[in-house]
Amino acid sequence: MASVRIREAKEGDCGNILRLIRVKAAGRKPVSQRGSVKKVGAQHLGPDGGWGGSEGWAPQAVAPGCAHTQALFLSLSVTTPMSAALRADGFGENPFYHCLVAEILPVPGEPHGPCVVGYGLYYFIYSTWTGRNVYLEDIYVKPEYRGQGIGSKIIKKVAEVALDKGCSQFRLAVLDWNKRAMDLYKALGAQDLTEAEGWHSFRFEREAMRELAGK
Amino acid sequence: MASVRIREAKEGDCGNILRLIRVKAAGRKPVSQRGSVKKVGAQHLGPDGGWGGSEGWAPQAVAPGCAHTQALFLSLSVTTPMSAALRADGFGENPFYHCLVAEILPVPGEPHGPCVVGYGLYYFIYSTWTGRNVYLEDIYVKPEYRGQGIGSKIIKKVAEVALDKGCSQFRLAVLDWNKRAMDLYKALGAQDLTEAEGWHSFRFEREAMRELAGK
Repeated sequence: MASVRIREAKEGDCGNILRLIRVKAAGRKPVSQRGSVKKVGAQHLGPDGGWGGSEGWAPQAVAPGCAHTQALFLSLSVTTPMSAALRADGFGENPFYHCLVAEILPVPGEPHGPCVVGYGLYYFIYSTWTGRNVYLEDIYVKPEYRGQGIGSKIIKKVAEVALDKGCSQFRLAVLDWNKRAMDLYKALGAQDLTEAEGWHSFRFEREAMRELAGK
Repeated sequence: MASVRIREAKEGDCGNILRLIRVKAAGRKPVSQRGSVKKVGAQHLGPDGGWGGSEGWAPQAVAPGCAHTQALFLSLSVTTPMSAALRADGFGENPFYHCLVAEILPVPGEPHGPCVVGYGLYYFIYSTWTGRNVYLEDIYVKPEYRGQGIGSKIIKKVAEVALDKGCSQFRLAVLDWNKRAMDLYKALGAQDLTEAEGWHSFRFEREAMRELAGK
């Protein structure tokens, strides 16, 4: 089995991260093909936990194998405004997010370098009760690299970073139909706060924000 | 009716903010007195929306009236490690949070200055789909100043700050028994993502984080 390294992303990783974000996005079924409205807007993991399988939300038209996949990725532009924003927002003086990347290390003698196959995007949040906390916003591992524990390694690294930073909680969100991810998080020691305490997530979109702000 | 101003908190407001956090905490019923386990750990608003009433979670032993309440507050120490953390985490080079305060402005001729009666603590978060967003972690208005729209003013100001900062979403979380707050957020244009899409909030506590990180 190939050797995997989890490390903090550098600005130079933005191209790879953006390619993975796009592959993940391309693997999302159109709303009309989904069984339930509950699947609309899913951002966190796939129905398989984001790294534990390949059914349903696996990226389309991406063949297994790092080199081949990278060649496919090259057809996607990474010089868009989204790429510029990703760089500016994550690697400026006051970063809006932090990111871990999972990379497959080459076997000695192989001509190519490490290959980024997954990411975990997180940021620091704050509670008036517990102070500094960390939030894992998004985690993804390419389907052909799942089943190797890479997703769990990313989660463990987030916990490590959080403890080093003095955080007392590590939060995330999952869609209720994603039983595999929910079971995994529970097995890893997380509590489902929506189930246990009744927390509901609310969101104002831009139009509602404009109404609120009178803009 | 007294004039209210919503403004960004300064470091010098930390004492007042901490006093309000403590008054809010003191108003929480012990777990055993609550009707349901779902009320445990409630951080967001009270059962009344945090500013819209006084039943149940109203701070105890706090008499109406700004000056009198401030006198009571003075008996609470604000030089604890928590106070130091609140200052360091919110007003350092890379702040973990931002805060709005609501203050009642004195009528011309009154001898005392403005009086802080509420706060809204927020921070910036990040989505791989929508980029910069804002999260309102905690909002509170002292019971005797509710019913004047101060909470809504704080929410509107958060939306304004978010738009100015290029955010496309404004998120928050509410407990499901807090119907008044949920109805208000919906009336203001927010969508309940847990209801509509099935999002569940998960949390690892410190011990689970240590297990994960092997520390």
